[in-house]
Amino acid sequence: MEIQQVEGSLVCTQRVPGLHHVHLRVLRDARGKRVVATDPVGASPGNWVFVVSGSAARYAMGDARILTDLTVGGIIDHWEPDT
Amino acid sequence: MEIQQVEGSLVCTQRVPGLHHVHLRVLRDARGKRVVATDPVGASPGNWVFVVSGSAARYAMGDARILTDLTVGGIIDHWEPDT
Amino acid sequence: MEIQQVEGSLVCTQRVPGLHHVHLRVLRDARGKRVVATDPVGASPGNWVFVVSGSAARYAMGDARILTDLTVGGIIDHWEPDT
Amino acid sequence: MEIQQVEGSLVCTQRVPGLHHVHLRVLRDARGKRVVATDPVGASPGNWVFVVSGSAARYAMGDARILTDLTVGGIIDHWEPDT
Amino acid sequence: MEIQQVEGSLVCTQRVPGLHHVHLRVLRDARGKRVVATDPVGASPGNWVFVVSGSAARYAMGDARILTDLTVGGIIDHWEPDT
Repeated sequence: MEIQQVEGSLVCTQRVPGLHHVHLRVLRDARGKRVVATDPVGASPGNWVFVVSGSAARYAMGDARILTDLTVGGIIDHWEPDT
Repeated sequence: MEIQQVEGSLVCTQRVPGLHHVHLRVLRDARGKRVVATDPVGASPGNWVFVVSGSAARYAMGDARILTDLTVGGIIDHWEPDT
Repeated sequence: MEIQQVEGSLVCTQRVPGLHHVHLRVLRDARGKRVVATDPVGASPGNWVFVVSGSAARYAMGDARILTDLTVGGIIDHWEPDT
Repeated sequence: MEIQQVEGSLVCTQRVPGLHHVHLRVLRDARGKRVVATDPVGASPGNWVFVVSGSAARYAMGDARILTDLTVGGIIDHWEPDT
Repeated sequence: MEIQQVEGSLVCTQRVPGLHHVHLRVLRDARGKRVVATDPVGASPGNWVFVVSGSAARYAMGDARILTDLTVGGIIDHWEPDT
C-alpha cells in the first residue's frame, strides 16, 4: 500500500453510474503528484493515509462492483514523510 | 485514480472484437504522456478527467468482458494541474 | 491503454503450456523500452498500436486462461508519437 | 515480486473493517521509498523480504477479501541489495 | 510482458504456505533492478526471458491460488538487450 497525504475533496458533477454517493478525495504523494481515491474512512485534509490499489480497492468499499482503483485504507497516527 | 486531460479521439479501424462500438479517447497526463481510454461519460477535448485502471475499468463500462484497462470515470469541474 | 510501436516477432522455443500457438510481438514505447505482447489483430513492424494490460489482456485473447498480461488491442490509423 | 527491507510496524488506529487484526509492516525499497504491507510471515526490522502485489497479495493472507495489495511472501536468507 | 535476465535462485527458508515447492528465480531488468519470479520453465543464469505479471502469473503456474505476481513465461532464443 502506498502512503499519501489528503489534500481535499474532488468537485465532479458528471460521473459514471455507481459513484454518485461515494466520497472522492484528492491525495498527494511525497513527490507532490495528485491522485483521486474513494474514502470509506473519513480522512481530513492534512492526514497521512495508506491507500489500497487494484481489485482490493473495490473490496474495501464493501462492493466489488464500485468503480475505483484506489481506496483509503487507514489514517496513519504517526508518520514521517520521505525526504 | 489518475488525473488526465482529454486531447481527442482515436482513429483506429482494425480492432479486436468487442471494441467496435466503444468510444476511445486520447488523454495526456501532466507530463504530456499520451494514453488511450474508453469513455462512457462523454468528455470533450480540454476537459480534465479522472480515469480508472485495471479490472475496475471494465466494470465501469457495464460489461466486465470489455477490452479496456482505462476508463474515464468523471469530468472534473474545478482542477489545478500539477506544476 | 498504452501506445506502442511494433518492432518484430519473438523467437522463443521454450515456453509455458498454453502459449504454443499464440503470436508474440516485440513492441517499443516512445522511450525505446521493449516489451512482449500477444497479438490477435495481426500488426506489422512499424505499426503504431494500443495495447491492453492486466486481466483485460486475457479477455482480448478470447480465453481468460491465456498466459498474457499485454495484448495488442488495435492498429492506430493516424497518430503522432510523443516528442 | 519486489525486494524490500522491513523498517518497522505501522501505528494506525482508524482503519477500514477487515484490517483490525492484521499486522502491517513499513517497508523500504532500495531507493528508500516506504510502502505498507500485510505480513503473515512475521518479518523483523532489518530483514530483507520479497513482497507479492495485486490480487495474489490477498490469496497469501488466506482470505481473498482481505484489504491488501502488498503481502510479505518470505524472508530472504542471503541477499545483496541493489547498488 | 517484460524482458528480464536470469541471475540466480533465491535462498529463502521462511515463506508463506503454498510456495514451499516452487522454484524462485532472481531476475534483473535492463536497468539492473532485481526482482523475484516463479519459474515453471527452468531458465538458467544468463538466459533472457519474458515474464508475465499480475493474475496471469498465477494461471501460468497451473494453480490460480499460487502466491506469485511474476512468472517466467519463456526463454528467448535470440535477443538484443536495450541499450
